[in-house]
Amino acid sequence: FRRNHHSVGIIGAPFSKGQSRDGVQLGPDLIRAAGLVEKLKGQGCTVKDYGNLTFEEVAKDETTGRAKRPRAVGQANKQLSEAVRKIKNEGHACVMLGGDHSLAIGSIHGHAACGTQLSVVWVDAHADINTPLTTPTGNIHGQPMSYLIHELRSKIPVMPNFSWLKPCIAAEDVVYIGLRDVDPEEHYILKYLGIKTFSMTEVDYLGIAKVMEQTCDHIFSKVKKPIHLSYDIDALDPSLAPATGTPVVGGLTYREGIYITEHICQTGLLSAVDMVEVNPKRGGTDNGVRSTVDAAVDLLLGCFGRVREGSHSADYKIPDP
Amino acid sequence: FRRNHHSVGIIGAPFSKGQSRDGVQLGPDLIRAAGLVEKLKGQGCTVKDYGNLTFEEVAKDETTGRAKRPRAVGQANKQLSEAVRKIKNEGHACVMLGGDHSLAIGSIHGHAACGTQLSVVWVDAHADINTPLTTPTGNIHGQPMSYLIHELRSKIPVMPNFSWLKPCIAAEDVVYIGLRDVDPEEHYILKYLGIKTFSMTEVDYLGIAKVMEQTCDHIFSKVKKPIHLSYDIDALDPSLAPATGTPVVGGLTYREGIYITEHICQTGLLSAVDMVEVNPKRGGTDNGVRSTVDAAVDLLLGCFGRVREGSHSADYKIPDP
Amino acid sequence: FRRNHHSVGIIGAPFSKGQSRDGVQLGPDLIRAAGLVEKLKGQGCTVKDYGNLTFEEVAKDETTGRAKRPRAVGQANKQLSEAVRKIKNEGHACVMLGGDHSLAIGSIHGHAACGTQLSVVWVDAHADINTPLTTPTGNIHGQPMSYLIHELRSKIPVMPNFSWLKPCIAAEDVVYIGLRDVDPEEHYILKYLGIKTFSMTEVDYLGIAKVMEQTCDHIFSKVKKPIHLSYDIDALDPSLAPATGTPVVGGLTYREGIYITEHICQTGLLSAVDMVEVNPKRGGTDNGVRSTVDAAVDLLLGCFGRVREGSHSADYKIPDP
Ligand SMILES: [Mn+2]
Ligand SMILES: [Mn+2]
Ligand SMILES: [Mn+2]
Ligand SMILES: [Mn+2]
Ligand SMILES: [Mn+2]
Ligand SMILES: [Mn+2]
Repeated sequence: FRRNHHSVGIIGAPFSKGQSRDGVQLGPDLIRAAGLVEKLKGQGCTVKDYGNLTFEEVAKDETTGRAKRPRAVGQANKQLSEAVRKIKNEGHACVMLGGDHSLAIGSIHGHAACGTQLSVVWVDAHADINTPLTTPTGNIHGQPMSYLIHELRSKIPVMPNFSWLKPCIAAEDVVYIGLRDVDPEEHYILKYLGIKTFSMTEVDYLGIAKVMEQTCDHIFSKVKKPIHLSYDIDALDPSLAPATGTPVVGGLTYREGIYITEHICQTGLLSAVDMVEVNPKRGGTDNGVRSTVDAAVDLLLGCFGRVREGSHSADYKIPDP
Repeated sequence: FRRNHHSVGIIGAPFSKGQSRDGVQLGPDLIRAAGLVEKLKGQGCTVKDYGNLTFEEVAKDETTGRAKRPRAVGQANKQLSEAVRKIKNEGHACVMLGGDHSLAIGSIHGHAACGTQLSVVWVDAHADINTPLTTPTGNIHGQPMSYLIHELRSKIPVMPNFSWLKPCIAAEDVVYIGLRDVDPEEHYILKYLGIKTFSMTEVDYLGIAKVMEQTCDHIFSKVKKPIHLSYDIDALDPSLAPATGTPVVGGLTYREGIYITEHICQTGLLSAVDMVEVNPKRGGTDNGVRSTVDAAVDLLLGCFGRVREGSHSADYKIPDP
Repeated sequence: FRRNHHSVGIIGAPFSKGQSRDGVQLGPDLIRAAGLVEKLKGQGCTVKDYGNLTFEEVAKDETTGRAKRPRAVGQANKQLSEAVRKIKNEGHACVMLGGDHSLAIGSIHGHAACGTQLSVVWVDAHADINTPLTTPTGNIHGQPMSYLIHELRSKIPVMPNFSWLKPCIAAEDVVYIGLRDVDPEEHYILKYLGIKTFSMTEVDYLGIAKVMEQTCDHIFSKVKKPIHLSYDIDALDPSLAPATGTPVVGGLTYREGIYITEHICQTGLLSAVDMVEVNPKRGGTDNGVRSTVDAAVDLLLGCFGRVREGSHSADYKIPDP
């Protein structure tokens, strides 16, 4: 059996300006309303909810390069970085509830600001590694990794409200799982940097168990660093998680999604999690939204000790009649 | 090719008092209406339908320990045990159509009453191994294994209408497949008794083929005993089998469910099958009910010789023009 | 990364008389309307669309043996054979859009008429290898393989409008993937001829990656021959491809279906593809039809260079600020 004494700090980031679809800012409260805090406590976690960040309107937010709304995204991520840094400094595993995936900029930056080198496991249908100059859509939720990786520093133009941000992740410390919609420019960058990727082809070829073994072999090949798990709900198949802005057919099953979290949890090195891109205004039906939100909650429970075989406390004894 | 000369005896047990949801008593007739008998005959089986048991109302059925309706459950299972024993003594593989999973008490007891030591393969989202003192719900469909296992004898209080029942299964002769919603008390019991379990985590890790190989390695490690397969339809994923009382997300696929039956059939040692917890008043839509019932039928066909690659009789010859 | 310079010739065959359900003749235009040509070009293919064949009404088309509408099927396939031969002789990989699966007769015959020995990879829930004398339904879409295989020549009666057809495939050059609804007579034939089959049981047992490795080991065991991939959309699970005439539960997932095409593409030997049995008048809902058609398009994109990890052109360079 396993001990589940995780101390979890939750920060909500109801931010949607890294992309164009309304609704994704509702994610944090929706995930909470599905019982996240109570369920984490129910499985033995200590939980502190830091509430939601509030973001001020940014006037005059012009496209830089091709990147849309850079001032809003830069400002929100600066706030988020500080919040995450505080949660980590107070000793918690940090759960960041998005909001869109541009928030990984602040979340990973704030996590790294604590001083240790991080591994990043990025679970997503998309690579989100366009630079502000390669992005076909301009949406910064498709770009966060490019701002964070040391090796891409020279490819990023100066952006308003981004002066606080320094790259903090090495390309060799990143693993992608679930890719199936990668732009040609992104594919070039991934190959150019030699980043470890498990696209859905590799998930099919290896199976999720070997994918996770090889993921951990890769990120632990030199030294055991804390793990930042950045989980885009669109990694899951749209049949189970339709309520998201950019669904892509052929995704992870619920079971594969959960297996990832169980495996990462068992490393004992999970230090922060992003759960992003839940958008209740997408997904068609109430059932679709519920299924998406429930999956997000279950993934987070898997991150912090829930295992499908069950568990019991160390001092339990079966009652006699 | 394979020969399909199975002799099958079917007993219906329209019983629902091992749990609280109306409808599960309709399972036997619904599974028959979907063509079970005709389809078994069509694949070369001899079939005798023993009809349905009838259960009398039990007045004054007070909770014992925490177990609800013990008199009704005890009485129904006594009847079922005798029916199953008769079917086995008449030389058939016994198919018990539930009804709720408390019926495994009588089905396994009647099967074991023929005198041979049995293996039990329990396919279920749940372990159904709470004792009357640990059960969080009181429903006896969550407890049958605790009454049946020798090693738990001292943990079971005296219950009205249960005096006929003696434990008849060894913990080492049990294998679970499909677990994903296990109470802490149940998890303790499973570990305490060292019972072999393949939760959905293990199904994900090993794949269903290796799970079945290891299942058979385990149950055949000493001597080849007849197999009692107790199949709770909620082992399957709710997307395909929603018409059940306690569905749990992240279940077996249709293909995994069928693979289990094909593999067990090929051992040549399948001696009795329970097919339980089909509840047409759950599942939302007509399609959901139909899908659940059809899956139950297909699982039973797989138990008795149907294979997906097809089969042909030994004396077939292709016609010339 | 991979080069995607495929030259593709498309021929539509809006033919439905190899079976009894109206609607399958709409497949070619529906698949085109979902953007097939544009998407192939978008991934770097050269595409020539040869349009649709037109089929004349056949008066007095009486059943021969048990085979229904032999004159219509024979005539349509003669036309198709000539069209496919032309496309191959003009140097393209040939994509035949059905229509029902009886069209494989003309498609494979025309492909083989170019003079090289072919391998056939037949992806289907059904074996489609009944002879005109064994067929339980009479529908020729359940018989095409029997007309094409040398070893069955003596089992095929003389049929009107089939005099142009000579068997052109060796049993050892055929591999089936996805079987789960095989008639006893077909099972006899498959075993009698020793044809390599991966039913859904084998897909479950081996996993799709090993199935494809063994498929290629089999068809390349002697010499590397061009591959004819005959893809019946009913190989996919009805949950994702319901718009087809004879759906069978327990099929390939979207990901398995795509993996097959990615793997075949990577051999560099794919020479012709049939995409058949898309029927928009089946499948229940608009979503069901859309999902089926989109899957058909994605499978064809996978045949001609699309990979889920993404790709980029050889001369791409990442822009500097
Ligand atoms: Mn994404
Ligand atoms: Mn993302
Ligand atoms: Mn059960
Ligand atoms: Mn159950
Ligand atoms: Mn078919
Ligand atoms: Mn077919």
